[in-house]
Amino acid sequence: MKQVIVITGASSGFGALTARALADAGHIVYASMRWTTGSNAPQVAEAARYAKEHGVDLRTVELDVANDVSTNAGIAKIIADNGRLDVVIHNAGHMSFGPAEAFTPEQFAQLYDINVLSTQRVNRAALPQLRKQGRGLVVWVSSSSARGGTPPYLSPYFAAKAAMDSLAVSYAGELARWGIETSIIVPGAFTKGTNHFAHSGAPADGARAAEYDEGPYAGLPDQALKGLAALEPADADAGTVAEAIVKVVGMPFGKRPFRTHIDPSQDGAEIVNGVADRVRAEMFRRIGIEDLLSPRVNG
Amino acid sequence: MKQVIVITGASSGFGALTARALADAGHIVYASMRWTTGSNAPQVAEAARYAKEHGVDLRTVELDVANDVSTNAGIAKIIADNGRLDVVIHNAGHMSFGPAEAFTPEQFAQLYDINVLSTQRVNRAALPQLRKQGRGLVVWVSSSSARGGTPPYLSPYFAAKAAMDSLAVSYAGELARWGIETSIIVPGAFTKGTNHFAHSGAPADGARAAEYDEGPYAGLPDQALKGLAALEPADADAGTVAEAIVKVVGMPFGKRPFRTHIDPSQDGAEIVNGVADRVRAEMFRRIGIEDLLSPRVNG
Repeated sequence: MKQVIVITGASSGFGALTARALADAGHIVYASMRWTTGSNAPQVAEAARYAKEHGVDLRTVELDVANDVSTNAGIAKIIADNGRLDVVIHNAGHMSFGPAEAFTPEQFAQLYDINVLSTQRVNRAALPQLRKQGRGLVVWVSSSSARGGTPPYLSPYFAAKAAMDSLAVSYAGELARWGIETSIIVPGAFTKGTNHFAHSGAPADGARAAEYDEGPYAGLPDQALKGLAALEPADADAGTVAEAIVKVVGMPFGKRPFRTHIDPSQDGAEIVNGVADRVRAEMFRRIGIEDLLSPRVNG
Repeated sequence: MKQVIVITGASSGFGALTARALADAGHIVYASMRWTTGSNAPQVAEAARYAKEHGVDLRTVELDVANDVSTNAGIAKIIADNGRLDVVIHNAGHMSFGPAEAFTPEQFAQLYDINVLSTQRVNRAALPQLRKQGRGLVVWVSSSSARGGTPPYLSPYFAAKAAMDSLAVSYAGELARWGIETSIIVPGAFTKGTNHFAHSGAPADGARAAEYDEGPYAGLPDQALKGLAALEPADADAGTVAEAIVKVVGMPFGKRPFRTHIDPSQDGAEIVNGVADRVRAEMFRRIGIEDLLSPRVNG
């Protein structure tokens, strides 16, 4: 069934790959991004070219997830154009690399804004429509770092993704009775195939970072990044994340998995999340709200 | 051995209980809080009275964890007074209650500030001294919600605590080679004995909250809170958290547990964290940085 889908952060990485794969699968896909008439104009043109060449319905829409007004306008345009919105995919995110102590509180706040508050802005803009429909799907592109083994030097990003995963779990229960389904995608570290690592932010407090780099942590950054890359099988492919999302979107309502792990490096998130999701279900049963474990089927 | 200790958010709750218990155990304890000459003046007087009556070294210090300048000044005063600082305890926190969709992004940001950025401000103020000493302890008062079963309607708090726990884990590895030990305290839900639940913040978007309260989620808030309270054994005592912290602080350097769970309701966090901490250790071994699992013993 053809669905109207919005995906955030779709100018590059998982987002761009997923937008195309969903369009290929026959959906009406809005690849949302900021700066569509500025530095992302080439991405807009490329999406249009892809749509024409493949005869698919891939569109772009201006939507800066860091801005309430832009987010509201982007979602409103999609709803105005189609009279509905079926699927929201939270994908926008940004990473930073360096010792935790060398990042300012403001830098931690910025990473929280891009990775977490972004989803809250989109939800507040989109959920009234999904609730009115009594049917919908919210897909969260989380990270295996929220529960798996994590190397040092990625703390602002890991903290934000742990928060984002927690928020996804909270929303799952709070949207179930509105007939809105939740599915969490858990990618492991893909150090190749996206710009995620290459475009990392650096700590603002260079003097503090130098104390680590020239002290007992000399060599650690290289070791951590090479170590992560070495855990990754040679055939690890970021496209498998896009494929997983297409599969989830295509499944029947109410039958989608709560989580899908795509982690070639096997950092352990899958087993930890498995236990965590079971203890959550147990708590819901203990306090008599087990109906929140599945989306209600309306009308 | 007598240690110089600072604990944040010590005007009430776990913080006040812990400050007294640590002073009773013979340490020099700084109960830090904001507004020491304003609305917390009675707490300052009470701490002084307690110190005198019990003949212990319980002091108070002005330290607003939401403010860089205040945090730097509070930590600097402690170091100036004692020539050292041995233990930092991150305890300050605040909760909110309501449907996720009804909180503004700004409210999510505020909860992140109080629960997470607070620890970053204190760390940036205190860690240079601990690193200089080549010895120290950082204790994080996390929450079982970061990994255990979680009821609905506490999303901004749960997201922030998940981030705080993630940050504690990142810092643990990044401080180990400086000779700084990390110990994470994981309290479950204590609905009595602190003001944590009673002083919860409410969603700013009342109209959106009303859609939930008057719609399919009517009755849910009451059910969630009563359910949580019902999981709690009658003898659950917030004082056991303070006792656990005193025990951790009193243990020999390098022998302290990475985590201590104090969760009378048994929400499952203990088993999930057990698995998570094992997969973390496994990753460190796989990439050759297993020395980061324990604090280095300096000279």
